[in-house]
Amino acid sequence: MTADMVRELATAARLAARALAMVVPEVKNRAVTAMADALWSERAAILSANAVDLAEARSAQHPSALLDRLALDERRIEKMAAGVRQVAALPDPVGEITGMWRRPNGLLVGRMRVPLGVIGVIYEARPGVTADAAALCLKSGNAAILKGGREAIRSNRVISNLLADAAAANGLPKGCVAFIDSVDREAVSHLLQLTGLVDLIIPRGGEELIRAVQRTSAIPVLAHDKGLCHTYVDEGADLHMAEEIAYNAKVERPGVCNAMESLLVHEGVATLFLPQIVRRLQEAGVEIRGCPRTRTLVQGIGAATEADWDTEYLDLMLSIRVVGSFEEAVAHIAAHGSGLAEAIVTSDHSRAMRFLREVDAGAVFVNASTRFTDGGEFGMGAEMGISTQKLHARGPVGLTGLTCEKFIIFGDGQIRDSSK
Amino acid sequence: MTADMVRELATAARLAARALAMVVPEVKNRAVTAMADALWSERAAILSANAVDLAEARSAQHPSALLDRLALDERRIEKMAAGVRQVAALPDPVGEITGMWRRPNGLLVGRMRVPLGVIGVIYEARPGVTADAAALCLKSGNAAILKGGREAIRSNRVISNLLADAAAANGLPKGCVAFIDSVDREAVSHLLQLTGLVDLIIPRGGEELIRAVQRTSAIPVLAHDKGLCHTYVDEGADLHMAEEIAYNAKVERPGVCNAMESLLVHEGVATLFLPQIVRRLQEAGVEIRGCPRTRTLVQGIGAATEADWDTEYLDLMLSIRVVGSFEEAVAHIAAHGSGLAEAIVTSDHSRAMRFLREVDAGAVFVNASTRFTDGGEFGMGAEMGISTQKLHARGPVGLTGLTCEKFIIFGDGQIRDSSK
Repeated sequence: MTADMVRELATAARLAARALAMVVPEVKNRAVTAMADALWSERAAILSANAVDLAEARSAQHPSALLDRLALDERRIEKMAAGVRQVAALPDPVGEITGMWRRPNGLLVGRMRVPLGVIGVIYEARPGVTADAAALCLKSGNAAILKGGREAIRSNRVISNLLADAAAANGLPKGCVAFIDSVDREAVSHLLQLTGLVDLIIPRGGEELIRAVQRTSAIPVLAHDKGLCHTYVDEGADLHMAEEIAYNAKVERPGVCNAMESLLVHEGVATLFLPQIVRRLQEAGVEIRGCPRTRTLVQGIGAATEADWDTEYLDLMLSIRVVGSFEEAVAHIAAHGSGLAEAIVTSDHSRAMRFLREVDAGAVFVNASTRFTDGGEFGMGAEMGISTQKLHARGPVGLTGLTCEKFIIFGDGQIRDSSK
Repeated sequence: MTADMVRELATAARLAARALAMVVPEVKNRAVTAMADALWSERAAILSANAVDLAEARSAQHPSALLDRLALDERRIEKMAAGVRQVAALPDPVGEITGMWRRPNGLLVGRMRVPLGVIGVIYEARPGVTADAAALCLKSGNAAILKGGREAIRSNRVISNLLADAAAANGLPKGCVAFIDSVDREAVSHLLQLTGLVDLIIPRGGEELIRAVQRTSAIPVLAHDKGLCHTYVDEGADLHMAEEIAYNAKVERPGVCNAMESLLVHEGVATLFLPQIVRRLQEAGVEIRGCPRTRTLVQGIGAATEADWDTEYLDLMLSIRVVGSFEEAVAHIAAHGSGLAEAIVTSDHSRAMRFLREVDAGAVFVNASTRFTDGGEFGMGAEMGISTQKLHARGPVGLTGLTCEKFIIFGDGQIRDSSK
């Protein structure tokens, strides 16, 4: 796609976004529900496009993890449609007045939540993101420009076309779901330069994709860095609770960003705690890499190198470090954490409250598993991702993360006199 | 300053920021008040440094506007100190819990307001910004890295040193007010690459400075675009009120970003309204440039070219356009407004509410002057600037705009089961 073609698409999306911002919730909900219906009723077309994508990916000898992310079947399409339906059911964030106050001169000043405008979503092999991202953008009043991975181009083309048709047939402005139908990387570069037309770029995928987008985008980026999450077991913690939480954080789903990668244990409980948790983790197939003190307390485990403290395994692997104090644990987290989610297991109220304040991360847990770091689990409904940046949105990004607040002011003729 | 020197400064600021985030409000308030005291007690040193800056700027034949911004006297230092004292008196945003809710599994999920970390402020000739920016950053728990214009280097050096000393002597961590003591532009380029050490860059100054920072920064930027503000006088508006508001928006302080640059008048009231307001504006020395219909209704005014609709005069100049409908006014604003502030004068409730919803700007006014677009006037206390971007902070940026929210989660042993 040429730069002009991408610009044309974005210009149409910008126009659509202006109209979309005014659409009342019930029309948006009807349209998003129709999108979910279309995914299911057109499943044969989706599956046949997906079969061609899959055959090509197989013959290109892509790794099996990619093939798994790419593959659709009826059950996955059903889940995709259910996710879209769930978005339709969420409360509409647009138009919410988040505060209003009266000034001494009688002006009434308030804040109103409004859509951002046009959101570009850049992702990789999972065709489900197409439906997911479109639903979240439209429900929050934003036009979406979607650019998926080259492996999924046929699946994404079918899905985005049927979503766009369902949206337009149900009262949403034409052009509010745009798809960059191109496999070349140039198209992305063009998109990333369209300041003034596109308001936000959300990259969803691996670290390499995210870094590349951050490096080259002239448009603000809402990014999701890696998840290097710790669980710290404090002196005096309930060790049964600590074991359950640590085991859950590592084993329940090791390949996701909110899984634990490093376990920190206070020296006062390490002798009692470590042999038991290590045995249980090893039984679950976890490879352990310990600091020297860990290796003294538990025989037969590998040594953690400096690099281990900064490694997101995303796998059945765990580094363990014994710390001399609460402060040492907090300092380790400050040095090595990625700011996604951190947890303490403790019985001490004061240290629980200090951990909440002193640990700088999107989600800070007391006595619960970092695995709960998720928009759905937090009660925000579906999420667009988990932001590890501090600006605009931090932690799980739901519908409100796709909006901003403008000031609204009601007067009855007030004018300003700066000399006063 | 070499890249290593800037990095060293930022590393120290990062360490200071971690400690500063934990400082209780009363200690911060005492330190910020001490900074105000120091500005006043050390005024002789400030004035003598400023005299040298001024002499050099005069001999370099800088324009008089720059000399005016650069010049300090006792009255200006008093105002500077008063501004800092006012920041100390504002409510502390850090640690505020902005919401907390219980999940079905018993988890208590909430959001806590925390500092961003390290903020770099890049500005031009006004030495007052040094005090202002440092006070706002420290009060909101952030370390500040300050880089002023080359013309004010001696003034800024004295001011930032005395602020840093007062902060450190009153319980704030050393290094939390850092000053880039350099006149070369390279130092700024180095600063703008320090992702991971600096969390936010705020450029304060002219359009050229802001564009250059936006173009080159690898760190998120909170920017203030130009202010191209409209006042739209609706059909059926109270024309006396409209006249007062339009006059105030243009004349009260024409050189600032929230002053009106274009006046839009509904054709139904143009015949009655325009001759009167134009005469009054002309008496105040305003040069008018009108659309063809404006020029038919009022004799002897210049013609507005297409470029006028996109020009921020920042001066006693005004473009006027007669529109055929409310929709035409809103479309003109969408095409030409800069998203800072827009106003309608109307008696019609439904159009008032439509204007609030349909106009996409940081501040949208009904029946009041755009000149009120200001953190102080909105009741937020002192402001760091007015953001015309949508992400993170929009409109006047006060202390909360210098913070972010993290999720905090209280559990009692909850673990996740994704299979459910």
